[in-house]
Amino acid sequence: MEMAAALIACGIDPEKGVLFRQSAVPQHSQLHWVLGTITPVGWLNRMTQWKSKLQQQQLNEEIPDQQQLNVHSSAAQGLLTGLFTYPVLMASDVLLYRATHIPVGEDQVQHVELARDLSIHFNKTFKTRAFPLPEYMLTATKRVMSLRDPLKKMSKSDPNEQSRITLSDSDDDIARKIRKAPTDSIEGISYDPKGRPGVSNLVAIYAAVRGVENEDAARELQAMSNREMKEMVAQAVIGEIAPIRQRMAEVLSDQNRLESVLRLGEEKARETAGQNWREIARCIGLPY
Amino acid sequence: MEMAAALIACGIDPEKGVLFRQSAVPQHSQLHWVLGTITPVGWLNRMTQWKSKLQQQQLNEEIPDQQQLNVHSSAAQGLLTGLFTYPVLMASDVLLYRATHIPVGEDQVQHVELARDLSIHFNKTFKTRAFPLPEYMLTATKRVMSLRDPLKKMSKSDPNEQSRITLSDSDDDIARKIRKAPTDSIEGISYDPKGRPGVSNLVAIYAAVRGVENEDAARELQAMSNREMKEMVAQAVIGEIAPIRQRMAEVLSDQNRLESVLRLGEEKARETAGQNWREIARCIGLPY
Repeated sequence: MEMAAALIACGIDPEKGVLFRQSAVPQHSQLHWVLGTITPVGWLNRMTQWKSKLQQQQLNEEIPDQQQLNVHSSAAQGLLTGLFTYPVLMASDVLLYRATHIPVGEDQVQHVELARDLSIHFNKTFKTRAFPLPEYMLTATKRVMSLRDPLKKMSKSDPNEQSRITLSDSDDDIARKIRKAPTDSIEGISYDPKGRPGVSNLVAIYAAVRGVENEDAARELQAMSNREMKEMVAQAVIGEIAPIRQRMAEVLSDQNRLESVLRLGEEKARETAGQNWREIARCIGLPY
Repeated sequence: MEMAAALIACGIDPEKGVLFRQSAVPQHSQLHWVLGTITPVGWLNRMTQWKSKLQQQQLNEEIPDQQQLNVHSSAAQGLLTGLFTYPVLMASDVLLYRATHIPVGEDQVQHVELARDLSIHFNKTFKTRAFPLPEYMLTATKRVMSLRDPLKKMSKSDPNEQSRITLSDSDDDIARKIRKAPTDSIEGISYDPKGRPGVSNLVAIYAAVRGVENEDAARELQAMSNREMKEMVAQAVIGEIAPIRQRMAEVLSDQNRLESVLRLGEEKARETAGQNWREIARCIGLPY
């Protein structure tokens, strides 16, 4: 109860969320190792994100593409083991807290599925019900595309900063990035991701911010020119991002308070993780 | 100093060795994850022990051997991720304590070399001297061969118990296993591992127990029949193992004392590991 009071004093609702730095909770790494010992290599070779990294590497190193792409192919040799086993760490992040509902983007669904497979596999192997079966929750907007290339996912690891909007972007940044996004020369606005990927991406962003369906957003914007539509999208996005940016600046301006919120969250996370880890360790016959 | 006194009271020289269960020290898993993030996949694909597991799997599943053996080959799919990344855990076990000298058998030299490579790579990547360069120390007897097949290494994972001598074997067990070991029909005893693998393995075991060179042991045994030689080897091995077996039984008969020795060792190990981990975490920019 004391911790709850302290969290409330920090402006954090302890029933709502626990903020912590993963490195403060050693059980993530411990469970990562344990889950690795029951994860067949084949399950990780099938991960789409790993396979796309291999493809990227193949392009970078100009390796002829008749070569089968796998962990042993030339393309893989320089990739890091941590990247290969990262989905196991993510499963550990989920299962350590016996999480049941995981909000993710579309690209992370396969990783939640791995966590489900590992939950079933662990429980079966050690004849236990230690882990629940986590379910993924997709957001209404499954993926936002790049503002430079609407066929690619918007990504914070894209080298081109113009391709994405960040929570710290100024109003001008946001307006400029949207203004420069590719569209097409068809008259009027419509939602048609295959035929009009650039325009449809902007419509989808507008719909997401307004909380409406893509088709309804398109109807609202249909008579506009590209320039007018972009202005509408930019204003909507700014209306969404600006208050978040301001709150971020506020939070970051008081490092002491931020640190104490994290410390309290870490204490709470360690408590839950520690309890669950002891139960997991008991299942597999470790004394700790 | 109190801990040192307690260890001495338990009959353990605290300057000599610290006994602990690895699972009691979470930093092993934490450093395993960190080292994995700087280990190229290619370094693990090259590990001889991994490659021989792949070969074994290929035989078990009757996979045609024209297929290149690697992490993505059919033979690998059912093998476990923990097996693939195990050498990284071993490197973490070594580097976590800033160990400088690692006593190993010949088959583990490659794993110490990986720990060396990771030490250099970590220090270079993070511009630090956090890790020393560990050196391996080979025992005089580099490898003991199987008592069933002298071309294979003696191994505790061999399915045939007759192939190895364990520290808990009775005098009769030891004598019987050695009596049944394959030899040859050449007259007299000599040391010639290529030409006479069975006889030479027994000579080498005798030499190891007596602390003499293989050739000197062979000279001592040269006029004997196989039966007489085996009797000599068995008596020498029994003389070595019996006191260890007795001491083991003694130690295992007092579980409370054993537990307290381990608890004290774990406290000491955690102290060192915790200190070193904080330094490592600082190097890579983690708050812990």
